[in-house]
Amino acid sequence: MVKTSDRINGIANSPIRKLTPLADAAKARGVKVYHLNIGQPDIRTPDAALDALKHIDRTVLEYSPSQGFLSLREKVSEYYSRYGMEYSPDQILITTGGSEAVLFSFLACLDPGDEIITTDPTYANYIAFAAAAGVTVRPILTRIEDNFALPPAEEFERLITPATKAILICNPNNPSGSLYSAREMQMLADIVRRHDLFLFSDEVYREFIYGDVSYISAGHLEGVDSNVVILDSFSKRYSECGIRIGAVVSRNRQVLEGVLKLGQARLSPPLLGQIVAEASCSVGREYLDPVIREYSHRRRVLVEGLGKIPGVTVSVPSGAFYAMAGLPVDDADRFCAWCLSDFEFEGETVMMAPASGFYFTPGAGLREVRIAYVLETKSLERAVMLLSKALERYPGHL
Amino acid sequence: MVKTSDRINGIANSPIRKLTPLADAAKARGVKVYHLNIGQPDIRTPDAALDALKHIDRTVLEYSPSQGFLSLREKVSEYYSRYGMEYSPDQILITTGGSEAVLFSFLACLDPGDEIITTDPTYANYIAFAAAAGVTVRPILTRIEDNFALPPAEEFERLITPATKAILICNPNNPSGSLYSAREMQMLADIVRRHDLFLFSDEVYREFIYGDVSYISAGHLEGVDSNVVILDSFSKRYSECGIRIGAVVSRNRQVLEGVLKLGQARLSPPLLGQIVAEASCSVGREYLDPVIREYSHRRRVLVEGLGKIPGVTVSVPSGAFYAMAGLPVDDADRFCAWCLSDFEFEGETVMMAPASGFYFTPGAGLREVRIAYVLETKSLERAVMLLSKALERYPGHL
Repeated sequence: MVKTSDRINGIANSPIRKLTPLADAAKARGVKVYHLNIGQPDIRTPDAALDALKHIDRTVLEYSPSQGFLSLREKVSEYYSRYGMEYSPDQILITTGGSEAVLFSFLACLDPGDEIITTDPTYANYIAFAAAAGVTVRPILTRIEDNFALPPAEEFERLITPATKAILICNPNNPSGSLYSAREMQMLADIVRRHDLFLFSDEVYREFIYGDVSYISAGHLEGVDSNVVILDSFSKRYSECGIRIGAVVSRNRQVLEGVLKLGQARLSPPLLGQIVAEASCSVGREYLDPVIREYSHRRRVLVEGLGKIPGVTVSVPSGAFYAMAGLPVDDADRFCAWCLSDFEFEGETVMMAPASGFYFTPGAGLREVRIAYVLETKSLERAVMLLSKALERYPGHL
Repeated sequence: MVKTSDRINGIANSPIRKLTPLADAAKARGVKVYHLNIGQPDIRTPDAALDALKHIDRTVLEYSPSQGFLSLREKVSEYYSRYGMEYSPDQILITTGGSEAVLFSFLACLDPGDEIITTDPTYANYIAFAAAAGVTVRPILTRIEDNFALPPAEEFERLITPATKAILICNPNNPSGSLYSAREMQMLADIVRRHDLFLFSDEVYREFIYGDVSYISAGHLEGVDSNVVILDSFSKRYSECGIRIGAVVSRNRQVLEGVLKLGQARLSPPLLGQIVAEASCSVGREYLDPVIREYSHRRRVLVEGLGKIPGVTVSVPSGAFYAMAGLPVDDADRFCAWCLSDFEFEGETVMMAPASGFYFTPGAGLREVRIAYVLETKSLERAVMLLSKALERYPGHL
């Protein structure tokens, strides 16, 4: 048997993946499963985007430019300027989803053996891409008790070694739902400038912020033009995760040059997705405002509902559409599996993402789950009730 | 200035990329440029595929399964069985184009420092993906005089070291147009079995074979189930390069498992592309036969036309839609640039791909160009005439 690579064999299967067969079995038994485990919005894709699809009159579905259509990059540039960020079309490279933006940025900026610092918990797929790139991740622990705020600069600096090349954030954060303040962002700017590091800023949830707070993008920070690499995506903004269109955005020409080399090697980003994405750019607040209001409402329903369950702690998310909840259980992995394999209430149950899949620090988040509030309110209320019933009956309840 | 990665900085810019500004400048001067440099077919995408696009009635363009839709994988499985290759749907993983199939297979099978052997000349983008994966490529020289046939087993075995993990072929071959015989394929099977290597077989031009020859896929070889990894794509087969749908196909479960981990990290392949690809699977020989006849005709026009130009040698391609031509010039890079910057005939010129971008061996292919016969016959004849005129006038003519 020919041996496959250590780097990929070393990537743990996500806890979600282990739960999937249990969810399938529950469904096969006729149990209805409420999915709080995935970030697939149920929001309708904008009509302008769906219409654009129907009006494609090309007869050859051919390659597009490796950096993406200029017309799309111009629209993305205008989009950023509405956020007070000046990026010219040639500082924007269209990628195949935010995922490719992450992988290509890692490959273009980091060599095997390099280190990056990221928050713990973090988006699980960063771990896989870092492994693929041969890069070591140094986690910096954030805590549910602090609403997952960033630790002070000294804690970051304690992790910096000669091999450190970058700090990676997700803002608003998946999985914690935290949104970084102007003070936190300025702290990061100071650190990356002082230590000559890249600041990778995954901002795919930029639209999804709740309450009267303003959004500080890494693109707003001054004096760090060569450090900042923004990773972006159309997926969540316009509920079009399937089109696979994202972007790498930077004022650092070497980064753009490196990412473009990889972009040329993979020839072009999806043609059809770009057409949909470009049409989506014409969509304004009339689409987004009701979406954000809806999520804001769901967030309140979720946080209030969880707050009423004895022993449950919950972070108050300021952005994205995830919340972390601490549960009064022996082990969240075991509890989530039990909900699918041994529990049902009136023929229904709930599926959540155990937080263990998002943490590097051993033992951290052992009793936490990530809850995506992507269901409409009635289903969300029902799912929270099911969680509460499950906790009552769970043998490993603390 | 924060420093980007050595691995990507080490990837040379392709000679084509250097020519592009010259082609743009020629066009700006009003010169018509015949593009023999790219593999973008001018063939119409099947109507069934274009129709499928118009009939998408989804209202949320959401994620699809990381391994690709089961319905698509079933159709791909049926497609292979028509070629006498038995692959079940779970031995097929849908990727974002053949490019992702290459990158993910490298990452899933190879660790940094591992070596792969591939033919020289080779598809230029393998070089970039190998660099991204930290893998060293050992080229094995094939020659225009031999119609780019594979060298004997001893030459392969001379290159095998303890770090060798794979042999990579493209069959039919880009850039050479060669098609490997049953004898050559059996030789490769014997080598990979004897030395416990992967055999990566890029078969995206499988349909494009000319003359009365039968196609031997790596999937037909016996006793090498754990070695063979087929890299495939819908792009060329149905003239739909822009949809970005390809596949990794293998009977080696560990390979599938590793590629799937990366597939899950990037969430899903393009939704819209998969819909188009699935519709394309219903297209039969009534679409493909005229396409192959057309390419076969173009191939004859090209080879005969080139054969009439004094001093030009040409490989006779058996597959794909490329031919390598040896030109009576001092340096093909310089000649191709000169054609765009200094030459025109009746307001027209020709753009070709210098072979230097496809060779690892220093100095190899110095006087060769790759010609893609993707233009309809009249344009192709005109382009060959322009090449002949350019050679007459070129100061570096030998």
